[in-house]
Amino acid sequence: MTRILIVGGVAGGASAAARARRMDEHAEIVLFERGEFISFANCGLPYHIGGDIPSRDALLLQTPQSFKRRFNVEVRVFSEVLSIDRAARTVRVRDQQRGEEYEERYDKLLLSPGAAPIRPPLPGIDAPGVYTLRNIPDMDRILAALAHDQPRHVTVVGGGFIGLEMMEALHQRNLPVTLLELSDQVMAPVDREMAAMLHARIREAGVDLRLRTGLSAIESLERSSDPTAEVTAAERHGLRLHLGDGTTLDTGLLILAIGVKPETLLAAQAGLELGPRGGIKVDAGMRTSDPDIFAVGDAVEELDFVTGDPALVPLAGPANRQGRIAADNMLGRAEQYKKTQGTAICKLFDLAVASTGLNEKRLKQLGMAYEKVYVHPGSHAGYYPGAHPVSLKLLFAPDGRILGAQAVGKDGIDKRIDVLAVAQRAGMTVFDLQDLELTYAPPFGSAKDVINMAGFVASNHLKGDSPLCHVSDVQALRADQLVLDVRNPGELDKLGRIPGALNIPLDELRGRLDELPRGKEIIVSCQVGLRGHVASRLLQQHGFAVKNLSGGFKTWQMAIAD
Amino acid sequence: MTRILIVGGVAGGASAAARARRMDEHAEIVLFERGEFISFANCGLPYHIGGDIPSRDALLLQTPQSFKRRFNVEVRVFSEVLSIDRAARTVRVRDQQRGEEYEERYDKLLLSPGAAPIRPPLPGIDAPGVYTLRNIPDMDRILAALAHDQPRHVTVVGGGFIGLEMMEALHQRNLPVTLLELSDQVMAPVDREMAAMLHARIREAGVDLRLRTGLSAIESLERSSDPTAEVTAAERHGLRLHLGDGTTLDTGLLILAIGVKPETLLAAQAGLELGPRGGIKVDAGMRTSDPDIFAVGDAVEELDFVTGDPALVPLAGPANRQGRIAADNMLGRAEQYKKTQGTAICKLFDLAVASTGLNEKRLKQLGMAYEKVYVHPGSHAGYYPGAHPVSLKLLFAPDGRILGAQAVGKDGIDKRIDVLAVAQRAGMTVFDLQDLELTYAPPFGSAKDVINMAGFVASNHLKGDSPLCHVSDVQALRADQLVLDVRNPGELDKLGRIPGALNIPLDELRGRLDELPRGKEIIVSCQVGLRGHVASRLLQQHGFAVKNLSGGFKTWQMAIAD
Repeated sequence: MTRILIVGGVAGGASAAARARRMDEHAEIVLFERGEFISFANCGLPYHIGGDIPSRDALLLQTPQSFKRRFNVEVRVFSEVLSIDRAARTVRVRDQQRGEEYEERYDKLLLSPGAAPIRPPLPGIDAPGVYTLRNIPDMDRILAALAHDQPRHVTVVGGGFIGLEMMEALHQRNLPVTLLELSDQVMAPVDREMAAMLHARIREAGVDLRLRTGLSAIESLERSSDPTAEVTAAERHGLRLHLGDGTTLDTGLLILAIGVKPETLLAAQAGLELGPRGGIKVDAGMRTSDPDIFAVGDAVEELDFVTGDPALVPLAGPANRQGRIAADNMLGRAEQYKKTQGTAICKLFDLAVASTGLNEKRLKQLGMAYEKVYVHPGSHAGYYPGAHPVSLKLLFAPDGRILGAQAVGKDGIDKRIDVLAVAQRAGMTVFDLQDLELTYAPPFGSAKDVINMAGFVASNHLKGDSPLCHVSDVQALRADQLVLDVRNPGELDKLGRIPGALNIPLDELRGRLDELPRGKEIIVSCQVGLRGHVASRLLQQHGFAVKNLSGGFKTWQMAIAD
Repeated sequence: MTRILIVGGVAGGASAAARARRMDEHAEIVLFERGEFISFANCGLPYHIGGDIPSRDALLLQTPQSFKRRFNVEVRVFSEVLSIDRAARTVRVRDQQRGEEYEERYDKLLLSPGAAPIRPPLPGIDAPGVYTLRNIPDMDRILAALAHDQPRHVTVVGGGFIGLEMMEALHQRNLPVTLLELSDQVMAPVDREMAAMLHARIREAGVDLRLRTGLSAIESLERSSDPTAEVTAAERHGLRLHLGDGTTLDTGLLILAIGVKPETLLAAQAGLELGPRGGIKVDAGMRTSDPDIFAVGDAVEELDFVTGDPALVPLAGPANRQGRIAADNMLGRAEQYKKTQGTAICKLFDLAVASTGLNEKRLKQLGMAYEKVYVHPGSHAGYYPGAHPVSLKLLFAPDGRILGAQAVGKDGIDKRIDVLAVAQRAGMTVFDLQDLELTYAPPFGSAKDVINMAGFVASNHLKGDSPLCHVSDVQALRADQLVLDVRNPGELDKLGRIPGALNIPLDELRGRLDELPRGKEIIVSCQVGLRGHVASRLLQQHGFAVKNLSGGFKTWQMAIAD
């Protein structure tokens, strides 16, 4: 009878326990959880704070009792695994309720400790009113603070997934929110010009978004230690934030959401190998450097799908799948985890932002050769009500291989990134995207879907039929280049224009070719790139040197936005 | 200078004309359209009739004038191409407005005549009040009839895409609707048990759905030829439908939507080869048996993606892509159309139904070996509001290769079939579906998405870990078999039960194994198949012969529904 011990009872650990039981009815399985809760909906925490998920109980997916009944897994909560004796194959456990320590023997040990919110060593970081969000007790503390302290202003630090979700949750509670982000964009998985749409939406909602603004120190405004004094709770527990730009910001509650750090202490103390990114090193079977110890989830390093390099990808999907694979392998099978694309999505008010694979920032860092296209087609046929633009950026290798994709919009974002995630995983090229047969009826898509369009544009570019250029080219315009805007004059008046661009509407272009200077390269622009493509082909065949600004004026606006 | 003539100005023809111009600025391109309109939104016609698309103009995507201005394509409407002289490379054209005929020379000729609604030779088929829907004038006629005749009841014959869309459009206009369907299900691309969800929804809406009911004859109820008589327009123009079951049905307006037939007369008379399914035969480059004549769209036979056999697939997506490919090839390129999966979707009230690849009916006809699974997971995390079940049927070869997929539900149907269409096209197996990394945040999906779940279930089945059986096995239960329902008693009371099934709730199963007879094969069932899987694994390892009913009681209900 195999004895399996599991450390950590959320996504990876709980998945592994359930799978292990299904694979082996006779194994002995014990799951240790440091906290009170196992298998809770950690991705749902911000939505309960914001009110979208009214019931706290909805977040508690399993209890130790339900897990025992269904899977015959012994769950020990409030039980911290302190150390591993690999030679003896035992762990030392502290029962936090009884204050006792004891040892348990294992045949196979699975580590699923997760990742902890980063708390930088800033002055005042431990002040009351400073919160992070990882689990149910964290959520309860934030809700209690909101209820009791009644802050009149709240601040979120960090514009990643949790930061944005918490910003929206607090905004939804009608609180004035400041969002501080040290870099020049929120949502690091996408590139800055894509994030610009998010910045605009955040500001439109009335949130005080401050980019390039770090937090230097936190000062407690303990204005009165006398509880009878005439100050409100908010005043009593207020915080003065000292920001990187030298200013201060008074706030009633601070959420730190600047990232997470793999929990590797237990593994490291046991002498298990860590990887270059600071996570637990595992092989494709989720086995650590000790063949009897496996590790999964946010604590481990997995291999990036594109580069094959170790990466930290703290996402729920990979954690769940890794748990399943580790369970199989602990019980003698040979399943492999197939690298991570990092496919992810975030709701931001009525927008969604999603991505898969590598972004352009990363491709530049890596020095990889890449091409890119932007398209902005409707989420479904324009003549059917409710269509919204899907702004899609597709990154690909010079041979057409898909490197990554990002999309922002109000509708159909998840679908397009899912399609591209599958295409990337299947090794498809941008040429293949032209031929994808996707569901079409007017309420759902277009006969030429967003994905087909991206494939057409990228293929036309790679084949040299319609070479593209980008905003950076317009910004670094040479004397022998000219920007030609082929939109109608009314659009320029209404939507704006690229400074210095010549304007000839597409439908007049054939008759006005003599207005274009010979010997200059023409950068054609329209609103989204489609008319620009038609104009490019036309001009090219009339002997002009031409490039089409990918994504047109809309992409230009995104790229120059603050 | 290449002279390209195009016959037919809607999806395939218009796409080809635009692409040809982009590829060759100097070609002469003339497009002949028999009707008044080119490039109209034929997929939008039912939605204008139903009122979702309020503006008729929204359906007119291009005019001859706009097409001339933008693409320098000469569009001749009301111009029917009567014949092709292949030796002389000319076509004979009838100008219907001037009543003149003339000839035009071509270097390359593209046929995009489409497919015509089938009008079976029934008695009374040409009665006033009998309509089909293919183009703008058809739509106008139906709208005029609705306005002037004010029918008090309407009938739609045929439960395919157009039939269902017209049924919904007319229902949306608050008209009592009868839907007649000769076969035992609507929406032939999916299998009957999947269509059962549509039948239930149609009846719930109050539509009089009559399956297995054909139309035998149409009788005009010309109750009075005296216009001063005291009868309403509806009574004057009423129809009495004689149905296959011997009954009659009086109705004010009849829409025939029983399918379409490729328009091949012109091609056939010119001696171009037709294929076995009655469409114009083309090669992968969309070239007919005459190397200077190409054909695209609903009139041609394309190759089925799975079988490689010729098929008629009258869908907008393939028509558009074929037009593009034909244009490239007419101008000397070598692009190939990559076979057709037939990916399609239809909105039905608040449901969507979609499919790709082959269905089970077809696999049976072909005698192909296949396996299938049903899953019903939520469209997104259950704890986030607004999730709806995605009922998915996945068909696959014994080696795991994806053969086809079908889904019905209120949310996320397009996305799941798109993902599977890409996976199928990429040659992925059900094993690969387990590893797909799809977008996950609670509003959009689940950490284990519907697609991953289908992959898990199919893989567990193929590996023998959790063998499945189906409703047909339960219906043909042998004496040495037993159905075990592992749901809770309350669910059986509320949702119904499989007659004769033993009930032991999953969470009590380990303690009640002695209630199960040894020597019988146990068919385990739960609500959707998940608990059944857990129970199957448990029982299997306690020495029982077990199969899990795929998709559980929910699939059973779908399969036995009328």
